[in-house]
Amino acid sequence: MQYAEPINNLIKAISRLPGIGEKTATRLALYILNAKREYVDELSSCLQNVKEKVALCPVCMTFSDTDPCSICNDAGRDPSTVCVVSDYKDMMALESMGGYKGRYHILHGNLAPLKGVGPDDIRIGELVARVEASGIKEVILATGFDAEGEATSAYLSRLLRPYGVRVTRLASGIPVGSFVEFMDGATLGRALDGRREVL
Amino acid sequence: MQYAEPINNLIKAISRLPGIGEKTATRLALYILNAKREYVDELSSCLQNVKEKVALCPVCMTFSDTDPCSICNDAGRDPSTVCVVSDYKDMMALESMGGYKGRYHILHGNLAPLKGVGPDDIRIGELVARVEASGIKEVILATGFDAEGEATSAYLSRLLRPYGVRVTRLASGIPVGSFVEFMDGATLGRALDGRREVL
Repeated sequence: MQYAEPINNLIKAISRLPGIGEKTATRLALYILNAKREYVDELSSCLQNVKEKVALCPVCMTFSDTDPCSICNDAGRDPSTVCVVSDYKDMMALESMGGYKGRYHILHGNLAPLKGVGPDDIRIGELVARVEASGIKEVILATGFDAEGEATSAYLSRLLRPYGVRVTRLASGIPVGSFVEFMDGATLGRALDGRREVL
Repeated sequence: MQYAEPINNLIKAISRLPGIGEKTATRLALYILNAKREYVDELSSCLQNVKEKVALCPVCMTFSDTDPCSICNDAGRDPSTVCVVSDYKDMMALESMGGYKGRYHILHGNLAPLKGVGPDDIRIGELVARVEASGIKEVILATGFDAEGEATSAYLSRLLRPYGVRVTRLASGIPVGSFVEFMDGATLGRALDGRREVL
């Protein structure tokens, strides 16, 4: 026996979410079937609101419900330092650290020629325009340390150098709390290259 | 830094779903933020549809988008045998087995005096009305074998006996594929009580 059509449609729609299989989707759909009408209305209006009220900040390209976003609008944050991240989640991780007082630029992806993602497919043009226009002194490249993040970082450093800005990259090495024995050769090589004087 | 208000609201609404913590809710909300508008519209209309188009079948109380439901409307299914389950999911499990050709009655819960759930809070009245009205010959009690399911089953058997219908209960014992050594005493006791002649 099949579930009634509207239930089946809901199961299919939910199971398209990442990490949600058909079993979990069925469980959630049946929960929604039993849930109060108010909750379902709230959930679906939250879904709509996130699409209607959240847009990209025209300056740094982050998701925001204000224009510009709260960080670009914060006079206390140094506009001459811009940290470039691949993704909104990377920005949130750096923000939750709490120590960074500059601005951001979100690329919304990495260069990935094998997947057909070129420089025009991510927010590189907007970054170059910012560097051209305003008094940016340092661009910190904080894309990932996987192959695509590294390639994006290398591409950006070549692209931005002619503008006379300082281009830096996050340090690569052994994470705090981890052990030398568990590190791969590439990480150990980086950690050795980047070694610093003990004071 | 906080997520923008609409994103935060969506995270909160998603994390109220069962088995979804704040981390998963955040991951799903950010996926939705990046997803195509069409998908989000589809998901929210599926949520609404399930509430608008699905109602309880007036005969057996199952969730259905037709009136009566496809099982109650199926002349090939014996109307004189009614299987009583606690929940819609129990009915779907029995249906996926495929061997049952009678009808159902869904209680939408079990008696649970400690939680304040009495006979008027679940669909017992509708079951009694069905037994009173029509030619039901056998009521199969298929509530769970936990304390609440057993109590509900015991209550129903006392309630229905005066109507002269045959009241049966699903067999209790060792599940197929399982081992005697892993069974608890209560299950072994039931299995022993319910032993059958080997032919």
